[in-house]
Amino acid sequence: MIRALVWGENVHEQTNETVAQLYPKGMHEAIADALRADGTIAVSIATLQEPEHGLTSRVLEETDVLLWWGHAAHGAVADDIVARVAGRVWQGMGLIALHSAHFSKIFKTLMGTHCALHWREAGERERLWVVNPGHPIAAGLPAHFTLENEEMYGEPFGIPEPMETVFLSWFQGGEVFRSGVTYQRGRGRIFYFRPGHETYPTYYDENVRKVLRNAVRWAYNPAQTTQDVTAAPNVPVEQALEPISERGPKLHAHGDRGFR
Amino acid sequence: MIRALVWGENVHEQTNETVAQLYPKGMHEAIADALRADGTIAVSIATLQEPEHGLTSRVLEETDVLLWWGHAAHGAVADDIVARVAGRVWQGMGLIALHSAHFSKIFKTLMGTHCALHWREAGERERLWVVNPGHPIAAGLPAHFTLENEEMYGEPFGIPEPMETVFLSWFQGGEVFRSGVTYQRGRGRIFYFRPGHETYPTYYDENVRKVLRNAVRWAYNPAQTTQDVTAAPNVPVEQALEPISERGPKLHAHGDRGFR
Amino acid sequence: MIRALVWGENVHEQTNETVAQLYPKGMHEAIADALRADGTIAVSIATLQEPEHGLTSRVLEETDVLLWWGHAAHGAVADDIVARVAGRVWQGMGLIALHSAHFSKIFKTLMGTHCALHWREAGERERLWVVNPGHPIAAGLPAHFTLENEEMYGEPFGIPEPMETVFLSWFQGGEVFRSGVTYQRGRGRIFYFRPGHETYPTYYDENVRKVLRNAVRWAYNPAQTTQDVTAAPNVPVEQALEPISERGPKLHAHGDRGFR
Amino acid sequence: MIRALVWGENVHEQTNETVAQLYPKGMHEAIADALRADGTIAVSIATLQEPEHGLTSRVLEETDVLLWWGHAAHGAVADDIVARVAGRVWQGMGLIALHSAHFSKIFKTLMGTHCALHWREAGERERLWVVNPGHPIAAGLPAHFTLENEEMYGEPFGIPEPMETVFLSWFQGGEVFRSGVTYQRGRGRIFYFRPGHETYPTYYDENVRKVLRNAVRWAYNPAQTTQDVTAAPNVPVEQALEPISERGPKLHAHGDRGFR
Repeated sequence: MIRALVWGENVHEQTNETVAQLYPKGMHEAIADALRADGTIAVSIATLQEPEHGLTSRVLEETDVLLWWGHAAHGAVADDIVARVAGRVWQGMGLIALHSAHFSKIFKTLMGTHCALHWREAGERERLWVVNPGHPIAAGLPAHFTLENEEMYGEPFGIPEPMETVFLSWFQGGEVFRSGVTYQRGRGRIFYFRPGHETYPTYYDENVRKVLRNAVRWAYNPAQTTQDVTAAPNVPVEQALEPISERGPKLHAHGDRGFR
Repeated sequence: MIRALVWGENVHEQTNETVAQLYPKGMHEAIADALRADGTIAVSIATLQEPEHGLTSRVLEETDVLLWWGHAAHGAVADDIVARVAGRVWQGMGLIALHSAHFSKIFKTLMGTHCALHWREAGERERLWVVNPGHPIAAGLPAHFTLENEEMYGEPFGIPEPMETVFLSWFQGGEVFRSGVTYQRGRGRIFYFRPGHETYPTYYDENVRKVLRNAVRWAYNPAQTTQDVTAAPNVPVEQALEPISERGPKLHAHGDRGFR
Repeated sequence: MIRALVWGENVHEQTNETVAQLYPKGMHEAIADALRADGTIAVSIATLQEPEHGLTSRVLEETDVLLWWGHAAHGAVADDIVARVAGRVWQGMGLIALHSAHFSKIFKTLMGTHCALHWREAGERERLWVVNPGHPIAAGLPAHFTLENEEMYGEPFGIPEPMETVFLSWFQGGEVFRSGVTYQRGRGRIFYFRPGHETYPTYYDENVRKVLRNAVRWAYNPAQTTQDVTAAPNVPVEQALEPISERGPKLHAHGDRGFR
Repeated sequence: MIRALVWGENVHEQTNETVAQLYPKGMHEAIADALRADGTIAVSIATLQEPEHGLTSRVLEETDVLLWWGHAAHGAVADDIVARVAGRVWQGMGLIALHSAHFSKIFKTLMGTHCALHWREAGERERLWVVNPGHPIAAGLPAHFTLENEEMYGEPFGIPEPMETVFLSWFQGGEVFRSGVTYQRGRGRIFYFRPGHETYPTYYDENVRKVLRNAVRWAYNPAQTTQDVTAAPNVPVEQALEPISERGPKLHAHGDRGFR
């Protein structure tokens, strides 16, 4: 079983009537439901309001793939928790950043960029095209699919050049967007998936739900570890793989740890 | 003229006799000297000890390419200055991270990874191989060149998959390393160059100096801007490029700024 | 001066009245005109009908960047000329493949893929978005620009994942396309640029013309060579950079050339 | 079961005494043996000498991953068979190119480059470093492993920038090499793995055998198809996803197929 953790900000569900009616159990529950349809995924949930946002070290160590939905409260996520999540991604936990999570601290931290875009909330039509039909995240999808009402996100999207581009979106109002892109950071695989505005029923769409399941399976890395991957060990001269002698001046005394 | 700024940590030059004798004016001066040999580069210098580490907004706005050497005092660089430098890279300033700057805050911020490696300070032989001989950073170099005494850095190097790999290093003790790698973050071009341990005369080596000049010219982006590239503007419905009507429920009132 | 060579198939200009009226001197002349507006580019022309298609070894050696427009007669281009052009790209000649050249032998050869897409000739609106605004090929362009009448090309486009994606297209009929993508093959830089259907005045559009000029400057590689880059030289044991002794059984006698 | 097909050139095994003694059943059998140790892989064999080199359309359609070892007789492989194999890779068949297959027609065709390198046959030590320890192809391997006797391949290696670099090699004589690199072409995944000179017992090495098994599992794409992926269908105006009217002059009559 792949251990997926759906993280929900859980703010608009409590404060906005439209969102509350559309996602009465919270958006995280709708996302979790989509995953539960896959018998190989075991789903847990965490929300912003829990202690440590529900993202304790123990929880993260027992998570294979983390899905992240946030929008109104990116700033309320504690910096040390963000660092902890990033560290776990480097160990091999997958991360799936959803929609407005393009501006989440964790996504920006892992991208190294500002992740800006331009946007319009008009309930317009979005059509997602599969540009990499052999990619596991596109498995079982039609050549394109439509979300009749979505928020528009327009290019330029301030991300690094992706490892792979899986989806491109066409918007009724005239824009395009790289809606499904992959990255690797450390041992962790990352997928950004654009749709999912909270005032529309996007997470009830069957194609969207299939993408979420595919993405969890793709992001799962069996070669993950819970050991420290950020160590920078000194290799003593006498343990060099090829025999060498120490030469020249040195900065470090024997057994020093390096600077960092 | 390309406006290059050499940033030096300037710590070991003041505290370690070997380094002080090798680089009596500071390592930053040796690096700057290498650049001054190119008539198209105007060189300035900044150091950790200056107010704002010499990296005021004004200075950065007037910098096309920033070279960064740091080792002992990564932690002493203020976080808000790091954020300012990253923002300027996103606008198009080039960044050249040298040697132990793999662990600098600015490089880790832009990579989104931990940038760890393993290392040995034994004055062993390093041989750099040009693997992308058509790359501008390799212009005028031989197929390979040797530094008789260098610190070893060994793989795995905790960086994202590079945009381009320009150099690979062979070490006498049996290791290999991706010694010259490129990235783009926002409009800014980034080059990491491995050699440059402070107890060896690496920055007096003619091939290394040529790489530095080539890298500055490569990292210079004439399409840089000093405007805010991190804005996420709302495009009003009535200004859509294709005529659309607003549909469905909305979260944002007219004229709202987005969350971030 | 950058030596650009515009290669035109020159078939529909002779056989189709619409094309002949739109491009009375040939499409290659309209493309060449766009380049001539840049004082740093020296422009030549070659066409399919010339001996060796105008692409003799001498002509190619004196070409820095080759622009290729073809559509109806891809099959008429001789295979040995295609191999010659590919070899010159590996040496560092830039290649700009225009519109229907996605199916040219030279583009498919350099991509290693089939380069298929789907299409519609309806004179619909195409809007090109700059997704990499810091890229030299996008210099001086607006955030997006429109061609009121163009042929539609739709995803999936059967190309390898690009090195960089510079433009994405939005089409009125509902499709999207990766309209400006870069690659490197050997020392040669390659740019594919989608617009340019022969029944529309695309090559008179000022933004398109600017892209062509930018692309020539970007694709120009000063580190090109006219030497054989495909040699696979044997390095004799006694010339190894580190002293080694021959061990174990051998296949090759001293001085043998390798198999290929 | 993943259906793997090991293709062996099977020349030196018949003509060179050293190779015949080392690999008495042929190198392809040693490679196949390595795969048979994985219960999820069903292994078949084909050789150059069979009709159609053992690579009929039917055989390829029933192959998920093809492993290719060739050296002395690259030129004897028929061009139409190479085109057939490439077409099957575009459909999603994986390809693993081994050692001297860097110069095979199929690998060069899929890379779009010349794939040259320099080399030395001296039985020297090769040490492979894992540079992407989270990659499935590196699963279960130590941080590095050594082949005491191998042929040297040195950079620059004339390949496109890889999608991922998994292994780098250190050679005793002073060279380095990108020994494990991945690509995607169409729906097909490609892995090049450097070791495997025919006069050394490389394919009996346990780490090498593990890499082969890992690579087959990685290259297996469940989303492969046996349908034609190279079609370039015309989408009639009346079937456009968004209603548009035909405008402007046309080249193609209704129902025309496109040029190619």
